[in-house]
Amino acid sequence: MTTERDLTISEVRLTPVLIADPPLLNTQGVHQPYTPRLIVEVVTAAGITGVGETYGDTKYLELARPFADRLVGRQVSDLGGLFTVADEVDVDAARVENALDVGGQRGVQTADKLRLSVVSGFEVACLDALGKALGLPVHALLGGKVRDAVEYSAYLFYKWADHPAGVPSEKDDWGEAVDPAGIVEQARRFTERYGFTSFKLKGGVFPPDEEIAAIRALAEAFPGHPLRLDPNGAWSVETSLKVAAALGDVLEYLEDPTLGTDAMAEVASRTSIPLATNMCVTTFAEIKEAFTRDAVQVVLSDHHYWGGLRNTRELAAICRTFGVGVSMHSNTHLGISLAAMTQVASTIPGLHHACDSHYPWQSEDVITERIAFEGGTVKVTDTPGLGVELDRDKLAFLHQRWLDDDGTMRDRDDEAAMRVADPEWTPPAVPRW
Amino acid sequence: MTTERDLTISEVRLTPVLIADPPLLNTQGVHQPYTPRLIVEVVTAAGITGVGETYGDTKYLELARPFADRLVGRQVSDLGGLFTVADEVDVDAARVENALDVGGQRGVQTADKLRLSVVSGFEVACLDALGKALGLPVHALLGGKVRDAVEYSAYLFYKWADHPAGVPSEKDDWGEAVDPAGIVEQARRFTERYGFTSFKLKGGVFPPDEEIAAIRALAEAFPGHPLRLDPNGAWSVETSLKVAAALGDVLEYLEDPTLGTDAMAEVASRTSIPLATNMCVTTFAEIKEAFTRDAVQVVLSDHHYWGGLRNTRELAAICRTFGVGVSMHSNTHLGISLAAMTQVASTIPGLHHACDSHYPWQSEDVITERIAFEGGTVKVTDTPGLGVELDRDKLAFLHQRWLDDDGTMRDRDDEAAMRVADPEWTPPAVPRW
Repeated sequence: MTTERDLTISEVRLTPVLIADPPLLNTQGVHQPYTPRLIVEVVTAAGITGVGETYGDTKYLELARPFADRLVGRQVSDLGGLFTVADEVDVDAARVENALDVGGQRGVQTADKLRLSVVSGFEVACLDALGKALGLPVHALLGGKVRDAVEYSAYLFYKWADHPAGVPSEKDDWGEAVDPAGIVEQARRFTERYGFTSFKLKGGVFPPDEEIAAIRALAEAFPGHPLRLDPNGAWSVETSLKVAAALGDVLEYLEDPTLGTDAMAEVASRTSIPLATNMCVTTFAEIKEAFTRDAVQVVLSDHHYWGGLRNTRELAAICRTFGVGVSMHSNTHLGISLAAMTQVASTIPGLHHACDSHYPWQSEDVITERIAFEGGTVKVTDTPGLGVELDRDKLAFLHQRWLDDDGTMRDRDDEAAMRVADPEWTPPAVPRW
Repeated sequence: MTTERDLTISEVRLTPVLIADPPLLNTQGVHQPYTPRLIVEVVTAAGITGVGETYGDTKYLELARPFADRLVGRQVSDLGGLFTVADEVDVDAARVENALDVGGQRGVQTADKLRLSVVSGFEVACLDALGKALGLPVHALLGGKVRDAVEYSAYLFYKWADHPAGVPSEKDDWGEAVDPAGIVEQARRFTERYGFTSFKLKGGVFPPDEEIAAIRALAEAFPGHPLRLDPNGAWSVETSLKVAAALGDVLEYLEDPTLGTDAMAEVASRTSIPLATNMCVTTFAEIKEAFTRDAVQVVLSDHHYWGGLRNTRELAAICRTFGVGVSMHSNTHLGISLAAMTQVASTIPGLHHACDSHYPWQSEDVITERIAFEGGTVKVTDTPGLGVELDRDKLAFLHQRWLDDDGTMRDRDDEAAMRVADPEWTPPAVPRW
């Protein structure tokens, strides 16, 4: 039997870190050499520690600190109450509203999105602590797994071999990929290393014909495997339809070809290729219009965006009810979030598409044992909580990097990172093509 | 820490009972003197017993028995798995499909609705056992309560003083209510006994003008209190609009004035009174059309219909996302279900309407201590599980009544019950008025 002490939060630790990130290209620019993440630890009076992870940019940290203070004395089982707490924390709305978020890949920023992203880190930490206190895996706290492994896709990126010279960075071993041959080579290494059988290419980097050629090359190299292309809304409706027509026979879905519900709905009405999104529908408030207009056919959930694992389940229920598919989006993240993604994905019926994860691109982590992909899947652990353990040395090392940073890396800015290589760079107006 | 033994189901007990029910009138007929319910007990290897309750008609029992057999050896925490088990149990679809369910108050019957109703009894029993094993109230297993008490409304019925002479029955002390004065008197007793402050009248029994007069009398007797009228779809679109116009200044909402999404959508488009439903939208499959057409403004959830407490939460999330209100429907039920309704309702944000409950009409129960309404609310218990305990003597007594029954009461049939008083009775074709 659990006691009150087991569940009462006595301390919350917040540790911002900077983790190495390869020079991955997208429509906004390029990933910085280091990207910020926030590690959340929730400690109960009985000494049980739960861990969570979320975005680590300054604006998230500023919100996370007062949020953390309010959690002391509350129960880790009071997950619904986290939203009440979040509503009590002031957000400088004027400062955050209407800015673009995380390299522009998440649509327009709002105070609510910020709040939900912060909640997600604490919700996962509370679930981890609760699971440990009760002796149950997180999936059991969410109603139980309906599968023993969760399928992920290879997340292919156009990339440079190295970050710009003169900028501190970690070397990666993936090499350059700026054309179809490079993408196919990258895909091969993904399959060799992790056994992935479906592939997503982050597009919007080169003119559509080049990206069509890359997908064609993948289709030839991996016949019959599910393929996806995601230009992050860089195309017009007409270009989207042109790409859809050119790749209709090989695409599992087209992801955010164009921006906004109007444009997505128009593309959807004129092609039979399903449209997936993590830009058109990123909050509950955006669902009604998009679903009633049939603007999207697959929602790529991200538990950071949506406010945690329980909200992710609710999103999946809404999608199921409206005949909309569901899968998972990913931004740069560590093993804590991959464990969380895997736990919640294991409980969702009808998860028909492999989930996205940046994890293979991250050479650094804060957990003792990296999570393994086998045959393109992550095994669902049944150990209490998330099934991961913090490595305090690694955490300290990555936190020290954050402490030592002069501020240039503490806020992810793909546009600024691109300007290091190309001082004239400004992200092109959308639709770019 | 919980052990595997705590959670592993070693035995499932099913106990059908017949409980006294007053002669409450509705558009189909009248409640039988006794109505069947099924009490579910899930026992774990460690001897922890969880209780649940659902419909007890023969068709539910036939499904519950093979379902129960399949649960032995499973974990009470594997709630998602209950739906998998339900899918494995054969339903004689041809026999159940297209019949009217539970006195015609639940729309057309389907095999899926039957399955979900059976699942609900087991899901609640599993949650009760899980909560007891973990030392947590059921609301904590659902993410934590956001309120300490749940508001219920007085559920007013036209009724006879007694069941027809010559039929075995229990006497109730509510007296007759067949006109406005009788309804107001009934409402007064509800407020005196339980402190309810909002009132719902089950209509569809008398011509609309008489029911309008009853609501007007309630408005006069209880000025400013929320009022609702529910004719179970007995009216045409034009009659619905006429009633809406006549009562627009006093109704909180109009419940199922007419049948089907088409008719509800038309009424909704021509009145500003919100329409509530537990007939137009009773399954996830019915949501998309009804919501996109704005046919209903409040869904009255019933965890028995929807497949349990977790599905009820998902329904509430869908409603919230689509700007549709949510409250709770009730059919004849005992204290186990009232405890379950209260636990889940306590976790749902934005529950703006008092929930319905038949419980005050039930003089019999299977729990040791009847659940109390105070000030029209039920307090949310924090004791592990549902917070109720089976009274084995009462259970045995009500089960014996079921065993002794010659079969006439084992399946609720309001139409047949009415024919005892009026041999010529057949439920009028809808719309009746």
